[in-house]
Amino acid sequence: MTTSKAVAVIGGTGHLGGALARRWSQAGLAVTIGSRDGERASAAADALARETGHPVYGAANREAAAGADIVLVAVPFASQAEVLEDIRDSVQGSIVIDATVPLVPPRVMRVQLPPEGCAAQRAQSLLGDGVQVVAAFHNVAAHRLAAGEDVDCDVLVFGDKRDARARVVELAEAAGLRGIHAGALANSAAAEALTSVLIFINKHYQVDGAGVRITGNLQTG
Amino acid sequence: MTTSKAVAVIGGTGHLGGALARRWSQAGLAVTIGSRDGERASAAADALARETGHPVYGAANREAAAGADIVLVAVPFASQAEVLEDIRDSVQGSIVIDATVPLVPPRVMRVQLPPEGCAAQRAQSLLGDGVQVVAAFHNVAAHRLAAGEDVDCDVLVFGDKRDARARVVELAEAAGLRGIHAGALANSAAAEALTSVLIFINKHYQVDGAGVRITGNLQTG
Repeated sequence: MTTSKAVAVIGGTGHLGGALARRWSQAGLAVTIGSRDGERASAAADALARETGHPVYGAANREAAAGADIVLVAVPFASQAEVLEDIRDSVQGSIVIDATVPLVPPRVMRVQLPPEGCAAQRAQSLLGDGVQVVAAFHNVAAHRLAAGEDVDCDVLVFGDKRDARARVVELAEAAGLRGIHAGALANSAAAEALTSVLIFINKHYQVDGAGVRITGNLQTG
Repeated sequence: MTTSKAVAVIGGTGHLGGALARRWSQAGLAVTIGSRDGERASAAADALARETGHPVYGAANREAAAGADIVLVAVPFASQAEVLEDIRDSVQGSIVIDATVPLVPPRVMRVQLPPEGCAAQRAQSLLGDGVQVVAAFHNVAAHRLAAGEDVDCDVLVFGDKRDARARVVELAEAAGLRGIHAGALANSAAAEALTSVLIFINKHYQVDGAGVRITGNLQTG
């Protein structure tokens, strides 16, 4: 477990970032919430700390990222490049978990992967080789995660370095989810594309939290 | 059910095509096995007919495709273009189910989608607008399907026309699998990419039949 290590959540006042920050804080991890607006981040951190009884810090994105050895970026696709450029210098040598799903409104039910192959490869290209990018958390329904419900969805974890992937698999487990080693960073295309498929399935079958499970009796965790 | 309709299986002497041909014949569908080699197709058809007690036909690909209103193409990525060009004239007005997974040996564990976006879009582009391309059956482990085992894997079905998708969802069910409407043909990128992920997972976790299930209590079938 990585409970002694610090995790920063960039986009920590958003739906997915906020839900993961809460679960990690509940699990006892030292969490820093990052937001474009440092005061908003501090307010969210204070509220979360009162709720979980664990210290939570809040800061503007760049400062939040600088203090952590593992940094989750959970922002909309349209903000990905700007946010990553902002924290680029702060995260050299760190692991950055990119959770970006390349949804292109209004056609969010249609897979539209970026020219780089997938959003995770775009992140790696923007951050440079000094950063270990791992991609994960694309498919979990944020509102279910936030509600503290059991989330019937695996977390596919992609990255070119096995050790970095393993750290993120542990973080998924700390959030009450099953993390699965899913291969190279380029493979993130699968989970990113699957999110549009799940949005379609939610609409077609009139459900609100379709997810994905890998079968085959994997010995995980 | 589409039991009164004819299904042709191009690549019907291969692993996936052969396994689906067997299951469809067992379900009472009129199956035609297509192969590059018409005599080989006929021999496979005779053997299957003896096994299932239902009539099975065999012919060279083009001829097999001409006699059916729904045609499954289950061939390796490297043969996709040549096979589709061969049957192009025979399938105008029909539904073609493309099961092609764009694996690029030797790196089959790495997602490498084609420039068209996915193999299914490539199929549509090769066959033209007179053909309704539906993509499906990318993720099922052919050896489990062939062995007659329960296959713990959903069939994600992609296509731009809902009625054509519904026909393929029924064919998945006739093969003992759960078919799921998964959106536009472009969304096939998700399932195609997932196959490389599943191959990685099989290796990493040392299992031999990892699959995928959609959660969320869908009311299917």
